[in-house]
Amino acid sequence: MLKVAFIGVGKIGQTIAYSVIFDGLAKEAILYDIIPELPEKFEHELRHAIATRGLDTEVIGTNSLDDVNNADVILIMAGKPRKPGMSRRDLFVDNAKIQIDLAQKLPPRNPGAIYIMVANPVDMMASVFMRFSKQFTISTGDQVETMRLRSFIAKKLKVPVNKVSGYVAGEHGEDAVVLWSTVKVNGKPFDEVAKGLSKEEVENYVKSIPGEIIRVMGGTTWGPATIIKDIVRAIALNEGRVMSIATPRTYQGEIVHISVPTVVGAEIGPSLEPVLPQADKERLNKAVEDFYKVYKENLDHLLQTIKQ
Amino acid sequence: MLKVAFIGVGKIGQTIAYSVIFDGLAKEAILYDIIPELPEKFEHELRHAIATRGLDTEVIGTNSLDDVNNADVILIMAGKPRKPGMSRRDLFVDNAKIQIDLAQKLPPRNPGAIYIMVANPVDMMASVFMRFSKQFTISTGDQVETMRLRSFIAKKLKVPVNKVSGYVAGEHGEDAVVLWSTVKVNGKPFDEVAKGLSKEEVENYVKSIPGEIIRVMGGTTWGPATIIKDIVRAIALNEGRVMSIATPRTYQGEIVHISVPTVVGAEIGPSLEPVLPQADKERLNKAVEDFYKVYKENLDHLLQTIKQ
Amino acid sequence: MLKVAFIGVGKIGQTIAYSVIFDGLAKEAILYDIIPELPEKFEHELRHAIATRGLDTEVIGTNSLDDVNNADVILIMAGKPRKPGMSRRDLFVDNAKIQIDLAQKLPPRNPGAIYIMVANPVDMMASVFMRFSKQFTISTGDQVETMRLRSFIAKKLKVPVNKVSGYVAGEHGEDAVVLWSTVKVNGKPFDEVAKGLSKEEVENYVKSIPGEIIRVMGGTTWGPATIIKDIVRAIALNEGRVMSIATPRTYQGEIVHISVPTVVGAEIGPSLEPVLPQADKERLNKAVEDFYKVYKENLDHLLQTIKQ
Amino acid sequence: MLKVAFIGVGKIGQTIAYSVIFDGLAKEAILYDIIPELPEKFEHELRHAIATRGLDTEVIGTNSLDDVNNADVILIMAGKPRKPGMSRRDLFVDNAKIQIDLAQKLPPRNPGAIYIMVANPVDMMASVFMRFSKQFTISTGDQVETMRLRSFIAKKLKVPVNKVSGYVAGEHGEDAVVLWSTVKVNGKPFDEVAKGLSKEEVENYVKSIPGEIIRVMGGTTWGPATIIKDIVRAIALNEGRVMSIATPRTYQGEIVHISVPTVVGAEIGPSLEPVLPQADKERLNKAVEDFYKVYKENLDHLLQTIKQ
Repeated sequence: MLKVAFIGVGKIGQTIAYSVIFDGLAKEAILYDIIPELPEKFEHELRHAIATRGLDTEVIGTNSLDDVNNADVILIMAGKPRKPGMSRRDLFVDNAKIQIDLAQKLPPRNPGAIYIMVANPVDMMASVFMRFSKQFTISTGDQVETMRLRSFIAKKLKVPVNKVSGYVAGEHGEDAVVLWSTVKVNGKPFDEVAKGLSKEEVENYVKSIPGEIIRVMGGTTWGPATIIKDIVRAIALNEGRVMSIATPRTYQGEIVHISVPTVVGAEIGPSLEPVLPQADKERLNKAVEDFYKVYKENLDHLLQTIKQ
Repeated sequence: MLKVAFIGVGKIGQTIAYSVIFDGLAKEAILYDIIPELPEKFEHELRHAIATRGLDTEVIGTNSLDDVNNADVILIMAGKPRKPGMSRRDLFVDNAKIQIDLAQKLPPRNPGAIYIMVANPVDMMASVFMRFSKQFTISTGDQVETMRLRSFIAKKLKVPVNKVSGYVAGEHGEDAVVLWSTVKVNGKPFDEVAKGLSKEEVENYVKSIPGEIIRVMGGTTWGPATIIKDIVRAIALNEGRVMSIATPRTYQGEIVHISVPTVVGAEIGPSLEPVLPQADKERLNKAVEDFYKVYKENLDHLLQTIKQ
Repeated sequence: MLKVAFIGVGKIGQTIAYSVIFDGLAKEAILYDIIPELPEKFEHELRHAIATRGLDTEVIGTNSLDDVNNADVILIMAGKPRKPGMSRRDLFVDNAKIQIDLAQKLPPRNPGAIYIMVANPVDMMASVFMRFSKQFTISTGDQVETMRLRSFIAKKLKVPVNKVSGYVAGEHGEDAVVLWSTVKVNGKPFDEVAKGLSKEEVENYVKSIPGEIIRVMGGTTWGPATIIKDIVRAIALNEGRVMSIATPRTYQGEIVHISVPTVVGAEIGPSLEPVLPQADKERLNKAVEDFYKVYKENLDHLLQTIKQ
Repeated sequence: MLKVAFIGVGKIGQTIAYSVIFDGLAKEAILYDIIPELPEKFEHELRHAIATRGLDTEVIGTNSLDDVNNADVILIMAGKPRKPGMSRRDLFVDNAKIQIDLAQKLPPRNPGAIYIMVANPVDMMASVFMRFSKQFTISTGDQVETMRLRSFIAKKLKVPVNKVSGYVAGEHGEDAVVLWSTVKVNGKPFDEVAKGLSKEEVENYVKSIPGEIIRVMGGTTWGPATIIKDIVRAIALNEGRVMSIATPRTYQGEIVHISVPTVVGAEIGPSLEPVLPQADKERLNKAVEDFYKVYKENLDHLLQTIKQ
């Protein structure tokens, strides 16, 4: 069991913390937020829940980063949501500043911690945090898309979701790519069992469903939180589970984060990239290039902004 | 495992449904709400979460009560929150009308189901639902207060919450009473271990903490949801766990709901009332009287309102 | 989570230890036996199992009672099985001597521990251990019979076992009595649903099945071990679950152990005896008398044996 | 959840079945053995255990292979242990005949089932079963050694076992090879953290500990059973967990089974062989050759024996 810190306990942060604690993964949980009283009141809620379940997790809610120390795993949800009319670049700058601040304050107090980025744009924020903190950072990346893919295929083909394999990779979000070579249903390739379900329909679902959920529910929480909890679980219990998360790689001298199926345990890696077919490898290389281009531009803009 | 229906999947309903499903208690979960698209989008979120966990729970989101059938357990969260300036009686009338409607529609499609009332004012709504449905109905009652009590004592006395026993009983809310004779810490009576912690401070916490949480977080969710999940668990797994829930009793010819420590399993009961000290029994009798007085007045007002 | 000691890790002790550890109930597990190397090799087996599951339970196998210290719960399986031609009284004497030895050695090193007797004759061994140790001791008593009762009714009536309630009480073994007033199937009394299944057939199963299992399998393990694990669970997680275990009571100046449905949590008790019908109370009183008679005779014989 | 069949419910078969059922992985469990009454009495034991835990697993004990049908996963423990003075080749012949018999009887009744070989010599028995059944068969292979490796390093270096990664591969038993390139402790290579612990000592432990356990306890059960349960879990919940199991490959025209780290989920594979360093790949190739040589000789002898 781990000491786990949750940086940002709004809706998604609360749901992740709850899932992690009630899966019995945390010996201690630190709940941090800048909003006054929020972490403390959330602590009360969790204590009431812990009482009925008989857990002995130690929970601390705090508005002070000083209380975030000696954590084994640190999840970062802190960031602003994109507001109407706001450009992606503006979102990048706003949230990157938060990460740079955390990158300076968290590492000295938490030697050896693994950082898991959850704040959006998630892959770029992971790259920013790692660039400025020099700490090993992963992005939850496309593991969320991966589970949405399987869930949709299972529902459409009326098979148990446990019988559907396959990964989504590349950058999290609109540009994520389904690795069709990995998709299997009851052990058979997608094309053999699709029965009229088109790849486009599947890809479209993976891309559009978060927007649909946000429109109706105000945000995605239960899906991502449970999936991110399972990333923490794989690390905590050293499960060695293959997940499509983004681990750091160096491209053109910069750390970048692109999701590929990767073994997740106490050790993060190796990735399964070498065993993918050539076509998929090329799509991932392309994703790295595209990511770098946008990221570099945003980063340069950010660095200029900071200097001023 | 049970077929469980969730009537009302707003914030609290979603959290209860999530807790029940991810504790592995539901073979099938029906998510019902009147808000268009909400149950369907929540279903998607849960499917994504189920995919990562490998559950084989069948989940259906619906806006139609026709889809709520053959459930073993039905949790009712449907109701309005009290708005500023609204009297308790007005809240009673508004929410009672919802219960009366459900009381007519749910039973024919769900023979043998157990009904668990969660909507506020929870004990009275249980009485109303049972009066009009003729179906066995319990209120989650003071089990939430019970866990808040234990949690607070544990924190204040710096002992593991698993070492604190004791129950809160009577009506859910401001008038709930701590059964001090049942409170033990490490097997010792409260007075022997209190070290300066006063009973008033404890009682005050139990009464005031929900308001505090609502003020900061907008509502109580994680605590009540997990506690209510454990009521469902006790029934589903036939645990025979003692919980302070409100089961129906007849007083002056009316069904009323007052919480007392009760064995909860496939069978609900017996209650531990006969083994309580005389003083506690008298406080519970008083609680029944008080409840009846207010309930009867509200009920008569409601019946008049309906006739018109 | 608790520090749990297992005194005697033969077949049943191993199975209980495994069940307790893999239900996540033990922070530390001490495995003690007098057989050289056995606890140490069992420790290795458990370490291999713990590695795959990712638990962080600390496990220690030892041949020295000095290593059994600061335990929260101590389960005693140490005792000889009855050999052919051996009288019950001889078995009592042999195993009581083991308990008296443990009663002197364990308490000084384990202040505040709860003792759970598993060795046979289980209720009398609990009484002996408590008499000589002055420590709170329970016997697993009739909770095993209780689950055998439910299991058999469920199988015969083709209903899920989770829908069958009811308790077996009195002395563990041949003289245990089914509390028929507590037996419910789908919420209905036994007589209404029995469909030709006679009470005699049920009682006969409860009495004869352990002998049948021993004849074919060499001993009962999986059933009792899991049921005893759940007693530990109820204590560890403070579940407040009603179980038919034997708690100490004083009769004619002696501590005796007779099973009645009892609330099991951090606190053991109260028992549900006061809420049972008069006929059941009388049968339990009779069981106490009968137990006392045989126990007293055995005890006197033992005391004489020791003096010599 | 799956329908799981257990072919052979002696000591190890019972322990695997118990672990699988109580981890909630089986919707139905079929317990088969040729020993009269054994599966039926084991069924009773499990029913008593299921009653306390509140599971709704359907359990059937049987002496007839006709009752083993429509299983999703079939575990084969049926086989004789090696007796003193018995050659390995004689053991091969005796147990291979059992597998050939099962290979003819099981597939027609269990379309699409995955077969998991547990009987020794486990890799060769998997090859025999698959050769004669034409069904996809895996051997539990070196996953047991893998966990013994991690457990020993953790104990010796006083680190949590969850912080130790690494795999044992090749043939199960004396010739298994530690893939030292994969061994990491707290993310660091073994050589950096070994502090005087030699590779020879570790390898020696992995090879000798089963013999030590067998000498004292009569057999290895708890370790292998829990590890094999986790193989079933990875398949049932589609975890995609990397485990060192033996999957079939063709060498010199024969199916052979050699363990390599492999992704285990609904899909078995891919293996991580391509991402291993060249030296490890060569050791695995050598293991395949060695396996083939012995296997082919045994197989030819067997085929001659059968013809006669």
